[in-house]
Amino acid sequence: MDIHSFNDTICAPATGSGGAIALIRISGPACFSAVDSVVRFRKGTAASAPASRIKFGEIPEVDEVLVSLFRAPHSYTGEDSAEITCHASPFIVSRILQLLTDAGCRPAGPGEFTRRAFLNGKMDLAQAEAVADVIAADTQAAHRIATNQLRGQYSLRLRTLRDRLLEIASLMELELDFSEEEVEFADRAKLRALLAETCAEISRLADSFRTGNAIKNGVPVVIAGAANAGKSTLLNALLGEERAIVSDIPGTTRDTVEETLVLGDVRFRFIDTAGLRESTDAIERIGIERSYASMAKAQVVIGVLDGLSPLDELRKACEEITKRLSPAQTLLMVRNKVDAYDAIPPEEFPRFDRVYGILELKYPAFGTYNWPPDQLAGELGIPSLLDISARSGEGLETLKQRLLESVGDLGSPDNATLVTNLRHYEALHSALEDLGRVSAGLDSGLTGDLLAQDLRSATRSLGSIFGEITTDDILGRIFERFCIGK
Amino acid sequence: MDIHSFNDTICAPATGSGGAIALIRISGPACFSAVDSVVRFRKGTAASAPASRIKFGEIPEVDEVLVSLFRAPHSYTGEDSAEITCHASPFIVSRILQLLTDAGCRPAGPGEFTRRAFLNGKMDLAQAEAVADVIAADTQAAHRIATNQLRGQYSLRLRTLRDRLLEIASLMELELDFSEEEVEFADRAKLRALLAETCAEISRLADSFRTGNAIKNGVPVVIAGAANAGKSTLLNALLGEERAIVSDIPGTTRDTVEETLVLGDVRFRFIDTAGLRESTDAIERIGIERSYASMAKAQVVIGVLDGLSPLDELRKACEEITKRLSPAQTLLMVRNKVDAYDAIPPEEFPRFDRVYGILELKYPAFGTYNWPPDQLAGELGIPSLLDISARSGEGLETLKQRLLESVGDLGSPDNATLVTNLRHYEALHSALEDLGRVSAGLDSGLTGDLLAQDLRSATRSLGSIFGEITTDDILGRIFERFCIGK
Repeated sequence: MDIHSFNDTICAPATGSGGAIALIRISGPACFSAVDSVVRFRKGTAASAPASRIKFGEIPEVDEVLVSLFRAPHSYTGEDSAEITCHASPFIVSRILQLLTDAGCRPAGPGEFTRRAFLNGKMDLAQAEAVADVIAADTQAAHRIATNQLRGQYSLRLRTLRDRLLEIASLMELELDFSEEEVEFADRAKLRALLAETCAEISRLADSFRTGNAIKNGVPVVIAGAANAGKSTLLNALLGEERAIVSDIPGTTRDTVEETLVLGDVRFRFIDTAGLRESTDAIERIGIERSYASMAKAQVVIGVLDGLSPLDELRKACEEITKRLSPAQTLLMVRNKVDAYDAIPPEEFPRFDRVYGILELKYPAFGTYNWPPDQLAGELGIPSLLDISARSGEGLETLKQRLLESVGDLGSPDNATLVTNLRHYEALHSALEDLGRVSAGLDSGLTGDLLAQDLRSATRSLGSIFGEITTDDILGRIFERFCIGK
Repeated sequence: MDIHSFNDTICAPATGSGGAIALIRISGPACFSAVDSVVRFRKGTAASAPASRIKFGEIPEVDEVLVSLFRAPHSYTGEDSAEITCHASPFIVSRILQLLTDAGCRPAGPGEFTRRAFLNGKMDLAQAEAVADVIAADTQAAHRIATNQLRGQYSLRLRTLRDRLLEIASLMELELDFSEEEVEFADRAKLRALLAETCAEISRLADSFRTGNAIKNGVPVVIAGAANAGKSTLLNALLGEERAIVSDIPGTTRDTVEETLVLGDVRFRFIDTAGLRESTDAIERIGIERSYASMAKAQVVIGVLDGLSPLDELRKACEEITKRLSPAQTLLMVRNKVDAYDAIPPEEFPRFDRVYGILELKYPAFGTYNWPPDQLAGELGIPSLLDISARSGEGLETLKQRLLESVGDLGSPDNATLVTNLRHYEALHSALEDLGRVSAGLDSGLTGDLLAQDLRSATRSLGSIFGEITTDDILGRIFERFCIGK
């Protein structure tokens, strides 16, 4: 890895808005001199203070502050660093940043402290990426994976795999050196076994992305069903009071803010869909195709049937929901609006229209209200059906339970080393493709030099995950998603 | 002051949500042992570490943290204290707080750290109150006053006044001791002069509350006018992009969140009013009376006239706005909707109704559109009138300029010692009442012992400002408005 030497000093607020205390971070060669020109200490200076010391000082006309001093290389970035703790007033924070800038610092970009930590060899790239994940983690499982990655266990596993590929490559290159003597040093059967084992492990890692991504970004759920079946009401009812925990934390890698719900220790992420129904209208079909495309991304599909619809409409709606379902997806089919069944006896149907305005129209065909859910499920050809009312809340706890059960034990401590990052997943995939070619080459008796080329490419792919080889471009894409001050 | 000894240890997050780093505060006798049972340090313990030291440690399965250690009495609260700096993940913060609670700490109430700092003699009560003000300050002027108060200059001035009252009281009590000998030790003329001087200074302080309150909480502004004159549109236009700076910072002492606008270095606070108009309807009159009551609280009244109304309606509206105005209030009268004048020549009036739906009705009486503002002002008997359009933005910059001019130089550095706190204002007022009785007593030749009683009461009032005498009740009311973690 290159030795990087930054000649500029960066500063940024590191704490969020509100609160009692704010913290401003400074890092770089001019750190202590900048601090000394901004803060008046009772005795001594930042430059002359021993490392890992807290000094009390005053920023004239601004605030009294505590300054924590860290001397290179014993700091987060590996550079001389300081943290100024002041009162959490936006006014004071911006004044201090202004003074630091006047003293020669420059405002840090997103993730720039962590980027320096990486470039100065304080952590590898997978660890650096984990910093943002640790901050964003809001379930035990997501926190465990991110912490594990931050502490280097994840990188260690990849380095082991990379080292094994290097070992295979060196065996092949040995063969290459002596090829003119027609000596086959590397036992091809042994190579093949080693390669297969390595591929299997890389595959397992790549496959863990589905679970890892579900833990980190949430299990994708689609609520599907005909218009007016009550999809939005159901979503709102599920989110209910828990809506407060939907947060968009700066520094996360989520691209869009979606409705999310944390049940138990699992985050569910609701993907928006329009209503599904048969249509000949061209524009409408585009919207419906889009809904199906969203559905394809879901791990769980909650199919919502309008419990006030007549049987033939229920059949149609059910078919629309199930016809594009993949075997990997879990379907939770519900019959909504059953509170109407409980609340009002059949002989009082005319009153229904006050509850559900649409009922009056459907009344003549109304016919499944007194069918138990299993009977209707059988009629519709689906394995099970849950009665709910998004409006009254009936059945929602059961539905949440089914949702949780549908994802299994995501939070298992066994799930500590998982791929949660699309960049890593793609690198693993690319390594697998290279190794596939190596394997085929071994079978067809290709010479070691040709095989070694693909092996080296696979090695580079694995190395790119922990940042053995990077470009400014890659680093830019990674760190632009961080928050300022990290 | 009592010596307080707290036998419990408190903990709380001190930083706001979001950001990269979070800080958790701990204070109390068991602070270091709690930290040692939660954090695993590479070497040594919190209990054995030298003061003002930063230690790197790990909270197993949670995070790697930095711990700053402060040994009593050299800490904010005066007690053994620690600050744990961790990743700003809500999950991590709540885990650490849970672990600290398990280790015997208790979650701190609002302002409890500052309350301990006060009770341990690290600061007086006026300084403690300034802590919340410093955090909430978002203009240079508000920040200057709060910092000044935090650093004790404000208390010093009150202590000086209190000491002078004590001096007067002791002179009188001397007279009392010797009263049987009929010796009048205290020269009553000198007493009277000293008293008058002290009263004058207390009065000046009490009077500064108007300015101090305007700086801290904002200059109260009312936008008054008939319904449909465009008051809401004007408010929204004035707030415009600056709406982002409207913030409700925890720990502030503002009771309600109102719309505020910072212009230059002055905060304006817009008080809601309903439309003003003549009405005989009883219910409607209550609403209108409420508007007038709001208007009475305003320092500046922006009167909005509907520029599309006929002259007689303008006259009525103008009268409604001005008739209850006090001489201390500034009136800025505007004629709104003048973009219609510019945009559309008179012969195209019929098109107006597409712009302002109400115009069609008024069209027959429409008559002042081509009057220059001064002419209309003269006709309405008001000193000046500003043409604006809340819709197009025309004239709004001038209006903002007039708003700023109307409050004078609030931000003057001379305004550093001002009363910004209603509690202090009331205490000063109560002292003035006592001193008024003393003064009257001197004139009517009351004996020293009677005068001394009122003097002592005034002394107590001043002392209550910086917390010489307090009750749990008073402290409770003061600190409940702080944020947690301060």
